[in-house]
Amino acid sequence: MAPAMRPGDAAFAAVEHVNAELFTLTYGAIVRQLLTDFEEVEQVNKQLDAMGYNIGIRLIDDFLAKSNVTRCSEFRETADVIAKVGFKMLLGVTATVSNWNNDSTECSLILEENPLVDFVELPETCQGLHYCNILCGVIRGALEMVSMRTEVKWVRDMLRGDDAYEMRLKMLDQIPEAYPYKDDE
Amino acid sequence: MAPAMRPGDAAFAAVEHVNAELFTLTYGAIVRQLLTDFEEVEQVNKQLDAMGYNIGIRLIDDFLAKSNVTRCSEFRETADVIAKVGFKMLLGVTATVSNWNNDSTECSLILEENPLVDFVELPETCQGLHYCNILCGVIRGALEMVSMRTEVKWVRDMLRGDDAYEMRLKMLDQIPEAYPYKDDE
Repeated sequence: MAPAMRPGDAAFAAVEHVNAELFTLTYGAIVRQLLTDFEEVEQVNKQLDAMGYNIGIRLIDDFLAKSNVTRCSEFRETADVIAKVGFKMLLGVTATVSNWNNDSTECSLILEENPLVDFVELPETCQGLHYCNILCGVIRGALEMVSMRTEVKWVRDMLRGDDAYEMRLKMLDQIPEAYPYKDDE
Repeated sequence: MAPAMRPGDAAFAAVEHVNAELFTLTYGAIVRQLLTDFEEVEQVNKQLDAMGYNIGIRLIDDFLAKSNVTRCSEFRETADVIAKVGFKMLLGVTATVSNWNNDSTECSLILEENPLVDFVELPETCQGLHYCNILCGVIRGALEMVSMRTEVKWVRDMLRGDDAYEMRLKMLDQIPEAYPYKDDE
């Protein structure tokens, strides 16, 4: 009998794929374009995050349909699903969850591999750039669609000389589910 | 014994992958950004082609390393490799080669599937847009790196109401290989 696939592997196998290098280079083209468009690196970070948000709110449906993930009962479980299934399904890599705060509302996702940054070196003029900020936006957008408002940002970045890619994920609040129609209508 | 893989499948299996929907949505974000940046749709077409060119000149090495393709002796063979191995390795789909001109310098690549356009609808204001123009640039750039100057453009586009995606590939000339050093240096 073949060994059972891990949930992330199964979810990644269930989606369509394209060449990672094509994606990496295409993403590089976006970042370069934005650096040309905006004077301030901080504006580029914001724009990448916004693009990611718009992608995340659309990707979540496919994720829920193909990952077989059921509703997470607490934020710790959510973080684990993002790390092991979400990242895997998106990029083919997994993350490690660590550095929880005391009340379990904040944690870090540490990426061992990051296909987005292959071949990338930041020039001196871009030192404030969060090159991978699109990923923060994707996660923020996807979580908002399952009623979680979060703050997501990079706190360590190897392109900036840190020793890992560490994304900080902070749960802000649960958005009450709003039903547009009353039951008796 | 397992059946032998077709060259395109083997090449696609040999590369790293990311989620196709993530790629599609990210590419959509580029196109939207360029439509904001440039007034003329024709400028956006040019910019997408230029981005693709820069990607193609970098992707060719990986392609040659992983596809086991050897030097093509004539342009007909080159077109076949692009259709069956190149597109497969990039996007996971294949193309059909057809509509050769009499002296075998021009042909069409017809895409049955096109992952780039999933979920895309062009608004009225963008009717001149060649949404997938990045692909023309990728092929032009990659071919230039193996000493072929080509002209690559879309002649049918389903987003514009045509019944297929047809890319016209025209061989302009073979660039003589230039060796920067003499043998005895």
